Amino acid sequence: MNTSELFFAPVTEDIRAIEALILSQANGYQADLKAALEHLLSSGGKRIRPTLTLIIGRMLGAEKRHLLTMAAAIELLHTATLVHDDLIDGSLLRRGIPTLNAQWSPGATVLTGDFLFAKAASLAARTESIPVIQLFSETLSIIVNGEISQMFDNRCRINRDEYYKRIYAKTASLFETSAASAAMLSPVDENVIHQLAQFGYNIGMAFQILDDILDFTADQATIGKPVGGDLRQGLVTLPTILYAEHHPGDAAIEMLVKGECVQKENQLNGLIQAIQSSEAPRLALAEAKSFVARGIESIRTQPDSIERNQLIELAEYIVDRKL
Amino acid sequence: MNTSELFFAPVTEDIRAIEALILSQANGYQADLKAALEHLLSSGGKRIRPTLTLIIGRMLGAEKRHLLTMAAAIELLHTATLVHDDLIDGSLLRRGIPTLNAQWSPGATVLTGDFLFAKAASLAARTESIPVIQLFSETLSIIVNGEISQMFDNRCRINRDEYYKRIYAKTASLFETSAASAAMLSPVDENVIHQLAQFGYNIGMAFQILDDILDFTADQATIGKPVGGDLRQGLVTLPTILYAEHHPGDAAIEMLVKGECVQKENQLNGLIQAIQSSEAPRLALAEAKSFVARGIESIRTQPDSIERNQLIELAEYIVDRKL
Repeated sequence: MNTSELFFAPVTEDIRAIEALILSQANGYQADLKAALEHLLSSGGKRIRPTLTLIIGRMLGAEKRHLLTMAAAIELLHTATLVHDDLIDGSLLRRGIPTLNAQWSPGATVLTGDFLFAKAASLAARTESIPVIQLFSETLSIIVNGEISQMFDNRCRINRDEYYKRIYAKTASLFETSAASAAMLSPVDENVIHQLAQFGYNIGMAFQILDDILDFTADQATIGKPVGGDLRQGLVTLPTILYAEHHPGDAAIEMLVKGECVQKENQLNGLIQAIQSSEAPRLALAEAKSFVARGIESIRTQPDSIERNQLIELAEYIVDRKL
Repeated sequence: MNTSELFFAPVTEDIRAIEALILSQANGYQADLKAALEHLLSSGGKRIRPTLTLIIGRMLGAEKRHLLTMAAAIELLHTATLVHDDLIDGSLLRRGIPTLNAQWSPGATVLTGDFLFAKAASLAARTESIPVIQLFSETLSIIVNGEISQMFDNRCRINRDEYYKRIYAKTASLFETSAASAAMLSPVDENVIHQLAQFGYNIGMAFQILDDILDFTADQATIGKPVGGDLRQGLVTLPTILYAEHHPGDAAIEMLVKGECVQKENQLNGLIQAIQSSEAPRLALAEAKSFVARGIESIRTQPDSIERNQLIELAEYIVDRKL
């Protein structure tokens, strides 16, 4: 474990409890659902969203039982969205492990995702907090709407506003909810809920920007997919946007500016290499770090505590990670 | 309008309000979602589930605003399950109108269904009743689990218990929830909630049995799919189960008893015709009518009212309808 990941250690036991709670959601249902859940949980993942929920709930004095239930609901919602995403993208591996759709029919994969959504909603309902339950279902709407926009509207376009909206829907919205829901389950006022929501939002934006940087800079073996995979799918992310701002005369960039996809393999490879060796990844990282700084700033007025320090470590880890 | 459908008339205005509420769920989201919702609502449907919710809520004194919201949540949940079902089954028409998957990519169809699930859950959460919200998400789990069981376990098997479990999951569970949730939103005790849940359960079972009879007896033009379509997909329903009990020596039935699918086209057509012209559809209808009678019996102790009479009419319509 990297020193920057020390914030995970204090919640390890709770994370195990959450995994057990998630697995138990298949009890009494069709046997293959249990197997699917075990497989999905075994593929690891950093559990960063429930970790965020747990640390904030501890800091603010949330009731433990409801906090664990909510953290499980959030991780399960995240898992459900991945099941449908991988099916839609035709991805056969995630974190080096076969996806559900690599092994099951499309129909079975759709239904398993639906089951996980239903169980995530059930878990959220068990918190018995109407505002938390409402926030949870709104977040699912935002995530799915973002994916639909990405599918219909946002291919091969250089547009910074669209990019921010997209990564909010895709990632930051659930980070925001992971943080806000923990505060909503705690004896704190609206102002504190807002601060924690801002914290979650900002580190969520940074998290996705870093993912988008790693898509260019990590080696293929580490991320388990081809370098520049986003751009190959017509998805323009921050490194490309920043490269375009600094190299407006690049022929491939001129195509994207006109809303045309770069389809020729050699032109695409050239653009990806140009972005990799340009200043764009470094500038994008600076932008991710400024989101993290804003996130930390939003919890500045919270009393000093072990948990507040853990949140700061978690925020810094987000822009420090290599995977 | 058939005289047996008079119970629909008093709720027509509320049903229009529910349709408007459902449509408004796409406001502020990707534009194609609105178009999809309009298309899905335009394909009609009897709105029998929200009608059930509305009449019961009126009878028991539920607050109008929450009742409409819940009825909309139920119809939207039903719509969402149809979107994914049609995709999985590859159905290109429903009620004579192209399905979403006939026009959109599988990915867009999956995501649209997900969006509708999320919005159905949001609407249910707006009732601000924790028990109703919990029941709602559990119902979705039951429906999806039933579909998974149907996919993995229940092909080409003659088993009455499995059949009843399947039609409960597929249909009666949502009828039960449509009825129970209306009672839960009303100032009544647990006993009344239980009675109405039983009413919903029983007429839901009858509703699906009638669908399964119509699959054999309605002409192809009326139901918009080939006669005996269930059996052609290896789905054994009550008419086949009853036919098997009375004709154990039939060669095709002997295959099904061994758990083998009847795959030869001429043997399958022969079995379907034999079931059609046998006593099985009539016996199945008698069974549906006995569910309806049990449903009506369960609300016998409710005070006499216009709405109670409408519920009885609705229950009788379920086994009287031709479509």
